[in-house]
Amino acid sequence: MKVRIGAAAVAVAALAGVALVPAGLSALQGPPPQVCEEPDRAVTLYGVKLSERRYGYGLTPTTASIPGPTLEMIEGECLAVTLVNESDRRMSIHAHGVDYTVASDGTALNSSCVRPGRSRTYVFQSHQAGSRVDGSVRPGSAGYWHYHDHCMGGPHGTAGINSGVFGAFIVRRPGDSLPDRDPFVVFMGPGSRINMKKAPNTPIFRAREGERIEFAVIGHGNQFHTFHLHGHRWADNRTGLLGDLEDPVALIDNRTVGPADSFGFQVIAGEGVGPGAWMYHCHVQGHSDAGMTGLLMVDAPDGGTTEAGRRALMRWKRHEGHV
Amino acid sequence: MKVRIGAAAVAVAALAGVALVPAGLSALQGPPPQVCEEPDRAVTLYGVKLSERRYGYGLTPTTASIPGPTLEMIEGECLAVTLVNESDRRMSIHAHGVDYTVASDGTALNSSCVRPGRSRTYVFQSHQAGSRVDGSVRPGSAGYWHYHDHCMGGPHGTAGINSGVFGAFIVRRPGDSLPDRDPFVVFMGPGSRINMKKAPNTPIFRAREGERIEFAVIGHGNQFHTFHLHGHRWADNRTGLLGDLEDPVALIDNRTVGPADSFGFQVIAGEGVGPGAWMYHCHVQGHSDAGMTGLLMVDAPDGGTTEAGRRALMRWKRHEGHV
Amino acid sequence: MKVRIGAAAVAVAALAGVALVPAGLSALQGPPPQVCEEPDRAVTLYGVKLSERRYGYGLTPTTASIPGPTLEMIEGECLAVTLVNESDRRMSIHAHGVDYTVASDGTALNSSCVRPGRSRTYVFQSHQAGSRVDGSVRPGSAGYWHYHDHCMGGPHGTAGINSGVFGAFIVRRPGDSLPDRDPFVVFMGPGSRINMKKAPNTPIFRAREGERIEFAVIGHGNQFHTFHLHGHRWADNRTGLLGDLEDPVALIDNRTVGPADSFGFQVIAGEGVGPGAWMYHCHVQGHSDAGMTGLLMVDAPDGGTTEAGRRALMRWKRHEGHV
Repeated sequence: MKVRIGAAAVAVAALAGVALVPAGLSALQGPPPQVCEEPDRAVTLYGVKLSERRYGYGLTPTTASIPGPTLEMIEGECLAVTLVNESDRRMSIHAHGVDYTVASDGTALNSSCVRPGRSRTYVFQSHQAGSRVDGSVRPGSAGYWHYHDHCMGGPHGTAGINSGVFGAFIVRRPGDSLPDRDPFVVFMGPGSRINMKKAPNTPIFRAREGERIEFAVIGHGNQFHTFHLHGHRWADNRTGLLGDLEDPVALIDNRTVGPADSFGFQVIAGEGVGPGAWMYHCHVQGHSDAGMTGLLMVDAPDGGTTEAGRRALMRWKRHEGHV
Repeated sequence: MKVRIGAAAVAVAALAGVALVPAGLSALQGPPPQVCEEPDRAVTLYGVKLSERRYGYGLTPTTASIPGPTLEMIEGECLAVTLVNESDRRMSIHAHGVDYTVASDGTALNSSCVRPGRSRTYVFQSHQAGSRVDGSVRPGSAGYWHYHDHCMGGPHGTAGINSGVFGAFIVRRPGDSLPDRDPFVVFMGPGSRINMKKAPNTPIFRAREGERIEFAVIGHGNQFHTFHLHGHRWADNRTGLLGDLEDPVALIDNRTVGPADSFGFQVIAGEGVGPGAWMYHCHVQGHSDAGMTGLLMVDAPDGGTTEAGRRALMRWKRHEGHV
Repeated sequence: MKVRIGAAAVAVAALAGVALVPAGLSALQGPPPQVCEEPDRAVTLYGVKLSERRYGYGLTPTTASIPGPTLEMIEGECLAVTLVNESDRRMSIHAHGVDYTVASDGTALNSSCVRPGRSRTYVFQSHQAGSRVDGSVRPGSAGYWHYHDHCMGGPHGTAGINSGVFGAFIVRRPGDSLPDRDPFVVFMGPGSRINMKKAPNTPIFRAREGERIEFAVIGHGNQFHTFHLHGHRWADNRTGLLGDLEDPVALIDNRTVGPADSFGFQVIAGEGVGPGAWMYHCHVQGHSDAGMTGLLMVDAPDGGTTEAGRRALMRWKRHEGHV
């Protein structure tokens, strides 16, 4: 399990002292158990008020960010995430894709919110695909998922989501190819924003031509968006990669992203198209015009920026005057 | 072919006296034929006015409901559905997914609406996948489909759809696994409603841990929604199930549902996550806050409700104050 | 490579005199190269002002249309498209799906717009799937793509898109089955329009029962739509066709289409359902009621129109009174 924040991979302390209710406890009485008794790893996230209208998760109280740290797991791992709520509002962690009992649902319905000044440990298990007794296949947990508040301001965490309290959660299958750089995380919404920013303050992701790069794209809020990337395409499946030359899946470069939809893909930066400034943007015209656009800067293999790329970067702020 | 309404499977009378135009009739002249001459089964649906603003389909005039009865077929069957319009407005049945000639299109364009006090028999055929003469594959009919009015209030049945005149239509491939309970049917919209209700009056689906359960999710109206289920995930394909351990399809727990989009899936209730109150909801924040949320109550394998589940149920009405 | 406009396939002049920067030029300095040095084919598109609020692409200055000519390629081909801007506004060509360097990005960001009275050659390469050095699969270019202006009225070409400056771009894999008729192109949006028209002025596509027909469906603008076709279904993959009898992909007859989303499929006209007037329409009720609907007229195999089809055609204008 790796926890990443921004461009820096962060070592995670081994688990110590997380109180877990044994899973063997009767399901009918007593508090609900967690999904695993001995998590493989533990991480602490701090819930922080960043400004009057922004909240976020951070690996320390002073490094909270929007989006929060990207969580990564390999199928089979169990992760304990302790939320220390240093903010002034009720918060939680609700995870998509992974296994958790109602004790880690992160909802008021299941009494798993965290009041200001308190903390709570959420336990998330992942598992590999396997065969059930009846012969059917139990799917594995791998996917481009996400986690977010589900408690602030109401039963669905709308105030938390609107404030930036979310992050990507990537679960890999053993043997999945790894990207050469930290995943590029793109939250579309809430509002006509990318990672709560408008161009030209949206992320400029950088890579060298030929590197294997990875996008994780997640929707949030009330709007529907479409994610488009210039010069690159991906397969519409779990990884964005084809399994073989005859794979019948559709190749796409544009995809509808509704609230809490998430997907991801790996591509080779500049493959067949070369280096330069490649836009990614919401293709809802009113949204891109309002600032839902950013850059994938592909430099030359030696790390140098091309002349065309340099000029495009100079144009960028003037090009996208959403300040 | 099974016809289900609510939780009760209903036996369907064998076909008697449905007048069908022979398919061999010249296509160029005379009234259009139906898609099969001798349907395997016949069912009568009554079109009923339920209240000033609600209409519905029912297996009897007094049991009409929203959604209407869930129709089920096995690929290869042919079903005759007679609509007896006991309401005060023009109605029809337009089916998705199955085969029908223009005589059963259920549209004013093809003269297949039913005036108040009249009746009409619609004939729907399903078929298994097979090879065409040119070697290409003709897909089978299996899918999570739906049927709805296409005549009330205009050429597209908007008044009918807005009044609740719709139901699920599930076609299975021979050999498909069957759920242990009647399918859980979730119509998202019209409006920010589930099955025309707002929480806490939306469906609470019940199952025991370990049971194979099935959701059919269908959109209608003007809005786009996303369907999210807590604690459970499914494959983004025809059945929600993986064919084998290496299947490259994406696993999802959230999906965009546009008007008339439909999909379904089977999961094992509580698999790997245990019993309790698992929310399902639209993840468009304004929609869930307005009441587009419901519960999947997973009890223990012996049928007992867990302490945590019992408490969540007590919280439910207070939790979702949309009355 | 074929270029089609309307129902007529148009022969394309062999390339002559297109100045291309050698791809071997240093990526770090000088103008960016194009994606291929010697395109297999060349076509000229004229950018034309059609009316106060409509612009379009045409193979000649007097035949510009909305949508513009459908471009088609077989994987492996390289196409040079010269845009001669005879309009009074800045225009470009931005292509989806195919390979192009930043020199052919068609954006102001990458200095590839065309001012009124000027011209510019965009170079688009397609490629077959193949294996990368690391053993992973590089997907081929085949898909139902599109091209559109990205310069008129702002950095995202919103004024161009809203004026009709777009066309379909179909790339086929060698061996893909070809349709018996020119592809039926359906642009959903901008606004509640199909190909910038409202019913009854939307396209009436004609085919004979048993013909292999092809739809290419593309979204544009600010709205989300769903595409529904009566009496026909397709697989939710690259081609709409199943690869084999056990293919687990979902069969659909309704699909969400967000801005710049695109997909296509082939079906056999009237297969299993017979001839007649089959509606296609946006299933967002307010959009279909506002005129986002059209007809697939399936005639008998001998080309004769059925009596039912003839009557439906007579009803069509009265049925859809959006003039």
